[in-house]
Amino acid sequence: MISQINPTIGDLQGNTAKILEGIEAARRTNAELVLFPELTISGYPPEDFLLLPHFIDAVEKQLDVIVKASTGISVVVGLPRNSHEHAEKYLFNSAAIINDGRLLGFHDKILLPTYDVFDERRYFDPGTDVRCWQLHGKKVAVVICEDQWRHAGCVETTRYNRDPIAELQSQSPDVLLNLSASPFSVTKFDKRLTVCSEAAKTLGCPVILCNQVGGNDSLIFDGYSIFVDRSGELVQCAKGFAEDHLLVDLSRKERCSAARDLMDDMYQALVLGVRDYFRKSGFTRACLGLSGGVDSALVACVAVDALGKDNILALMMPSRYSSPGSVDDAVVLAARLGIKTKTISIEQPFESYLQLLSPHFEGKAPDVTEENIQARIRGMILMAFSNKHGYIVLSTANKSEMAMGYSTLYGDLCGGLAVINDVTKQQVYALANWINRHGEIIPWDTIHKPPSAELRPNQKDSDSLPSYDILDNVVSDYVEEHRSPEEIAARHRYPLELVYDLVKRIHRSEYKRRQGPPGLRISEKAFSTGRRFPIVQRWV
Amino acid sequence: MISQINPTIGDLQGNTAKILEGIEAARRTNAELVLFPELTISGYPPEDFLLLPHFIDAVEKQLDVIVKASTGISVVVGLPRNSHEHAEKYLFNSAAIINDGRLLGFHDKILLPTYDVFDERRYFDPGTDVRCWQLHGKKVAVVICEDQWRHAGCVETTRYNRDPIAELQSQSPDVLLNLSASPFSVTKFDKRLTVCSEAAKTLGCPVILCNQVGGNDSLIFDGYSIFVDRSGELVQCAKGFAEDHLLVDLSRKERCSAARDLMDDMYQALVLGVRDYFRKSGFTRACLGLSGGVDSALVACVAVDALGKDNILALMMPSRYSSPGSVDDAVVLAARLGIKTKTISIEQPFESYLQLLSPHFEGKAPDVTEENIQARIRGMILMAFSNKHGYIVLSTANKSEMAMGYSTLYGDLCGGLAVINDVTKQQVYALANWINRHGEIIPWDTIHKPPSAELRPNQKDSDSLPSYDILDNVVSDYVEEHRSPEEIAARHRYPLELVYDLVKRIHRSEYKRRQGPPGLRISEKAFSTGRRFPIVQRWV
Repeated sequence: MISQINPTIGDLQGNTAKILEGIEAARRTNAELVLFPELTISGYPPEDFLLLPHFIDAVEKQLDVIVKASTGISVVVGLPRNSHEHAEKYLFNSAAIINDGRLLGFHDKILLPTYDVFDERRYFDPGTDVRCWQLHGKKVAVVICEDQWRHAGCVETTRYNRDPIAELQSQSPDVLLNLSASPFSVTKFDKRLTVCSEAAKTLGCPVILCNQVGGNDSLIFDGYSIFVDRSGELVQCAKGFAEDHLLVDLSRKERCSAARDLMDDMYQALVLGVRDYFRKSGFTRACLGLSGGVDSALVACVAVDALGKDNILALMMPSRYSSPGSVDDAVVLAARLGIKTKTISIEQPFESYLQLLSPHFEGKAPDVTEENIQARIRGMILMAFSNKHGYIVLSTANKSEMAMGYSTLYGDLCGGLAVINDVTKQQVYALANWINRHGEIIPWDTIHKPPSAELRPNQKDSDSLPSYDILDNVVSDYVEEHRSPEEIAARHRYPLELVYDLVKRIHRSEYKRRQGPPGLRISEKAFSTGRRFPIVQRWV
Repeated sequence: MISQINPTIGDLQGNTAKILEGIEAARRTNAELVLFPELTISGYPPEDFLLLPHFIDAVEKQLDVIVKASTGISVVVGLPRNSHEHAEKYLFNSAAIINDGRLLGFHDKILLPTYDVFDERRYFDPGTDVRCWQLHGKKVAVVICEDQWRHAGCVETTRYNRDPIAELQSQSPDVLLNLSASPFSVTKFDKRLTVCSEAAKTLGCPVILCNQVGGNDSLIFDGYSIFVDRSGELVQCAKGFAEDHLLVDLSRKERCSAARDLMDDMYQALVLGVRDYFRKSGFTRACLGLSGGVDSALVACVAVDALGKDNILALMMPSRYSSPGSVDDAVVLAARLGIKTKTISIEQPFESYLQLLSPHFEGKAPDVTEENIQARIRGMILMAFSNKHGYIVLSTANKSEMAMGYSTLYGDLCGGLAVINDVTKQQVYALANWINRHGEIIPWDTIHKPPSAELRPNQKDSDSLPSYDILDNVVSDYVEEHRSPEEIAARHRYPLELVYDLVKRIHRSEYKRRQGPPGLRISEKAFSTGRRFPIVQRWV
């Protein structure tokens, strides 16, 4: 059985309780073995908790509990464990192979991803070998996540000089098990399937991969654990974005479709990311500024699906520059979603600041200062509601804006969680249209009007930014693909000066992103802990 | 000659110009060889610039320029370079050994620190061997920074299974050169000296270490390059916190004192960190809120020494809760430092917010909400000055406050740089006293009055926090030493409940620190990129 659970980082007892439930569920269905995701006991990624010796001791105690609970069944469960004295790092990222009350041994992860959001070489030493375990009359090979990726050629920035799948070939396993914590991105399911498929074909045996599910800070794990047969075809697939106990039937011949609804996946990922950020930190209620624009409209929809409409408060905070249409659109959306709203004009504090500062700004024309003041008053009001009533503020900046620094630090960048800061503006529109696929929920006017921050008269995003298709292409090529400006200009036939300017703006706004709230990652390269550039630099 | 230069990250041409100047300086003094710090051409740490292939190509071009400029002299310079096809990562962290217009070869760093702020395994493959180079009739061994640390037993969280110094022993070098980028911490000079000393004694030859100098974001490199003789004694030492060309005289017998003024070092580190953050990003002027408290007083002193008094604006922003003494103290300090001040009462916007929000806060008693509003108005005013006049705002939160979350997000945590967020409250007092060692600069009243945020009537830090000696001990033991709460309680005889509570608060305020401005690192474990804990977790 695949026990696709949603652990909470560091909740060793809670995670162990879920493991014991998984074992119970497997027993009820007469499964011979139950497979859990990578680092099950600690949750993935535990980050620097791994450096606390008392944390590792506590993990070990939970392993004893699990071994004792394994009467009559095999259990394969993930955990960090102390390495031996010849290892460079103090830990292995391991899978414990347990059968009928006995710990048979460990597989230690061999290929340790150390790129993007992954820092496994910070904590772990690579395992030395990979082997089969005799369980229920079968030769069962066990690997962990990345161990299997090199074989399919699906790894970037690293050329591992070992290939555990190839190393297993001579051992002719009857089945390969993989414990994974493989975070969601829009292209990830297909890659994961390819990885399993290639291993199955090489080894000539079925592959069963159990993936973690759930949101942990920025990372969203989509689940979708899979069973592919010896020819590499998908036979069974667990739920996406939810816990699942999937009884694998190795004799099953029917295949299952690998087709995905990518819009649905992307939306469900955001919903799960928000839900788990709140649930795992003990919060239930969110507030956000609803401007009548498409970004906050999308975030409101996600929030309602994640937390329930009764837990959402939308603040409408119009200024002298807000268009009547925007306010109306926000009201209509809030009514459709059934969420509470409050309208608080920011005129009074705005006027107060202008008066207070005017002696100090004499002779200076209005500029971004006055725009930022408006955004920061809104941030202030949202944070006051957060402090007084226990809401977490949701930030609504998107990835295209984050790239350009087209956002106000301490203003619209206030919040506990940036829901869509890895969603490009074009993806925001696509998701808004998808939400409206069965009929208007987000007012069409919100989707169709030219985007504007409404911080000065007749402002349009296009005053300061190129069209979003150009911007999103440059961001994708430069940030995700590491292409040079010259290459980007050439492949899209953009003026080189334009590309230079955009790349410069990406680096210049690093200081803003560094202080933004954590954002949910849905691409292969988000503006988050997986992208590490200096603030002060003179390359660009 | 040791050419202890201050490179800017990514400024390949500027850094190369400094290298050529170093070569010129060496030539003028008839030095046989000139030694530069680690990753000289790119600056250290270049972070994800290393993942851009066009960046690495550009570095290679600069190496050609340097080789051409080396007529009649030997040059040892650091750079990232492409690794060979069997390497796991695409790069080596290398030293180019150049003599008289010819590139003789490379030493590739073998021990790659991947802990705390160091992520070298993210980018680099370890080198395979270490050797001597025949230069000017001498056998010259070359290593890079960490290569030398394991031998002295000075590495934590990693047990390297190679020891390049021991590997060199059979080759009997005449001298060992070390290219370093070893960041400042209060205990670092002594460690670095021990490391050189141990290598010298093992190899029976002098050791010359060239350390980078300068501030790069959070990291401050102190320079203090050293030459120790074959018996491991310190003979020559370059300047601290400044560029220096030190002509090493291998025949010199006189020794030099290794004694340091730690307070002076700590202060100079902060000054250099601020100066380079501004200079390297093209800014000259700073503003800060001057409250009359000791934290902002210290930051003002550092800022004046870093940027010059004419470049500093202090804003006094009293509220109904500010004590008259505080305002007076701030005025006195500003006058002594000769910095511009402006006084802007926050009463008017505070009243405006209270009125605006009162309908929404009915029946709720004043609490932290109203305190945060005051801090955020101050942040708003500072940011308005920043936007309108081009100041960078200096944040004044200290490490003890950052540990506890005793600070307001988007309020006193506003800013481009957090000057003292790795300085504990006790160190703040020690530095303030040190600044006053020749006479009062910071008003003694500022130092001696009980610390208070002055955000409600008669507020004292001690209302919410234990005494700072207890707090700082727990932070040091838990954050820097990774001790368990039980161990901490036992060794200091503190109530276990108190330690649990403080540890809980450290983890609960992770979300605030994540959004704080980058801070200058002066300890072995700052709240910065070197400490990576999840925001959402249930371990504590």
